[in-house]
Amino acid sequence: MDYNKKALEEHEKLKGKLKVVSKVKVDSKDKLSTAYTPGVAAPCMKIYENEEDVYKYTGKGNTIAIITDGSAVLGLGDIGPKAALPVMEGKAVLFNEFAGIDAIPICLDTNDTEEIIKTIKILAPGIGGINLEDISAPRCFEIEEQLIKDLNIPVFHDDQHGTAIVTSAALINANKLRKTKLEDLKVVINGAGAAGTAIAKMLLNLGIKDIIILNSRGIINPEDLTLDQSRKELAEITNPRKILGDLKDAINGADVFIGVSIKDILDKEKVKLMNKKPIIFAMANPDPEINPNLAKEAGAFIVGTGRSDYPNQINNVLAFPGVFRGALDARAEAITEAMKTAAAFALADVLSEEELDENHILPEPFDSRVTPKVAQAVKKAWEN
Amino acid sequence: MDYNKKALEEHEKLKGKLKVVSKVKVDSKDKLSTAYTPGVAAPCMKIYENEEDVYKYTGKGNTIAIITDGSAVLGLGDIGPKAALPVMEGKAVLFNEFAGIDAIPICLDTNDTEEIIKTIKILAPGIGGINLEDISAPRCFEIEEQLIKDLNIPVFHDDQHGTAIVTSAALINANKLRKTKLEDLKVVINGAGAAGTAIAKMLLNLGIKDIIILNSRGIINPEDLTLDQSRKELAEITNPRKILGDLKDAINGADVFIGVSIKDILDKEKVKLMNKKPIIFAMANPDPEINPNLAKEAGAFIVGTGRSDYPNQINNVLAFPGVFRGALDARAEAITEAMKTAAAFALADVLSEEELDENHILPEPFDSRVTPKVAQAVKKAWEN
Repeated sequence: MDYNKKALEEHEKLKGKLKVVSKVKVDSKDKLSTAYTPGVAAPCMKIYENEEDVYKYTGKGNTIAIITDGSAVLGLGDIGPKAALPVMEGKAVLFNEFAGIDAIPICLDTNDTEEIIKTIKILAPGIGGINLEDISAPRCFEIEEQLIKDLNIPVFHDDQHGTAIVTSAALINANKLRKTKLEDLKVVINGAGAAGTAIAKMLLNLGIKDIIILNSRGIINPEDLTLDQSRKELAEITNPRKILGDLKDAINGADVFIGVSIKDILDKEKVKLMNKKPIIFAMANPDPEINPNLAKEAGAFIVGTGRSDYPNQINNVLAFPGVFRGALDARAEAITEAMKTAAAFALADVLSEEELDENHILPEPFDSRVTPKVAQAVKKAWEN
Repeated sequence: MDYNKKALEEHEKLKGKLKVVSKVKVDSKDKLSTAYTPGVAAPCMKIYENEEDVYKYTGKGNTIAIITDGSAVLGLGDIGPKAALPVMEGKAVLFNEFAGIDAIPICLDTNDTEEIIKTIKILAPGIGGINLEDISAPRCFEIEEQLIKDLNIPVFHDDQHGTAIVTSAALINANKLRKTKLEDLKVVINGAGAAGTAIAKMLLNLGIKDIIILNSRGIINPEDLTLDQSRKELAEITNPRKILGDLKDAINGADVFIGVSIKDILDKEKVKLMNKKPIIFAMANPDPEINPNLAKEAGAFIVGTGRSDYPNQINNVLAFPGVFRGALDARAEAITEAMKTAAAFALADVLSEEELDENHILPEPFDSRVTPKVAQAVKKAWEN
């Protein structure tokens, strides 16, 4: 199917995939006087007297902003804030359709880290949560970190943590089928951007000890003086066997390959260097690091990609609606590591043992069990 | 009716008067692939190649932001951004209900003029228009002026221009009944905040020459060295007879009193000092400058207030939905003086000669003729 053509037609027809609608029909003076002046002064004064009442009388508690600077949009790169808007609207559609959240796209006309942080802090009073989207690394790390410190609402960079949660869930289930222990796995992550970094950190939290992560110049290691601060930290917590070199050196004897990089970087020869029954998540978009059929031919046990036309789609939509639904329901002030880990295990747990097989390690995006289950786990993890 | 009690109940029940909903039902892989990846990349790239296409493929052209810092909310004053949210939601409801506009409330956590300007500029790429709301004078003047210079989308401070448009329309029609010429009127404006300033400027644009404007210390005049820049400019374009003093001095022999100040500042004695058949718009909220019954007893020909329980309610909802509808439909890059004047005359023109009388100088807020008529005039004024 030609999605490009169809998408252009649909987008032109709709002129925006969202609408903002009133919950009240204002068709009488009474209704006008209740929704607006003079009656509206009463909830205003309640909130003025007690700030927390903003959750009682307004939509703040169910509203999130999807915020981008348009610097790392899909696989398209730095296309700017206006060109990013269709993606942000699409994301808002998914928040709405999957989790009933009121999501507002906000596209920022700056790439400056400090300006982005300041702008988001200034517009936060009416917003219940911030989903950062498609902001390039390493700025995304600093922006998220500072906002988490400064704001008392959940801040979540989906390209990092959404991807990490779904990848972790996929790995948990793949590993169930492979019948190995998580902590014994040797994992190679190709790509040290937002997603790769977050996946590495989350897998460490899951108890995996042997992780090697690579950027386009090879294995990240503490001796590389060209690394920025966030990659330096990454180098210190990964690569326990101190291996130097490139993907071929890294993948030798590995159990798991996770690609968040570029197409065709993995070939059959490299797959054959891996341990028995290797797990391969080739998530480059739109074209994976290796064609799943080639990977299977080379001996892969389980293959996942970012695409819907191969088995085992590793799709963020399995995580972000439930994560925010849970965080908003709990009125959480942040999305903690415990909440993310809980989300990964809850997502992995959606499929029963009977449903689980090598081509079904994750539920479908439209599986109605997903969002409630993830939301409940996230809420519980905050409340504990 | 106790609107306070009812408003609290309603606001608590609704938890927000707005919802953001998806125009597309995402219930299949095809729809997901069209509204989101991979199809969404196609409109993104179209916009990347030609920025104007953002109006073709997204909701920008029908979306406005209602932006406040919470510094001058209703008659409540500086209650802050969170407490202002119910008002902004209410305003968004009215934009939606009266003009089908997607309006997003944004409450800013700063009162700093430069920060407000910068923040709004940064979040503008996805927004089709900016309605500034409840920002105190004189900062509102500088903020609006700078944004009009820097942005190529309509920026409109409703407390200024919405009020000025509806007041002008009311005066145009009152004057029809009084059978005097606009340019011969002597007008006193009590209150030199956002609304009073904008009304003065608009009446000058309508051809009225003799306007005296007062703040709480008396008649504004160029010899007052304590005036800020915006009031200094005001002093230079008003008060042609160079009168000094207070309201009593100003109102002597005046045809029109326009109050945007505080309750009970006008009494029967002062009304009796006015010219024959005086027109009195006592718009202080919630309690007018003079009780309309008292004004009538003292000889007032026509009395208008901001309230719905007296005749001749001068209500901004008669202007702002149509002004933005027209500006968005024309894809105007600003809201010019000509567009505002056209809006005032169009609004005045809604009521036929037969409908017009001393207690009906303006249409009701729910008169369905209002928004289309104002919108059409505004659109035409931009296109000419």
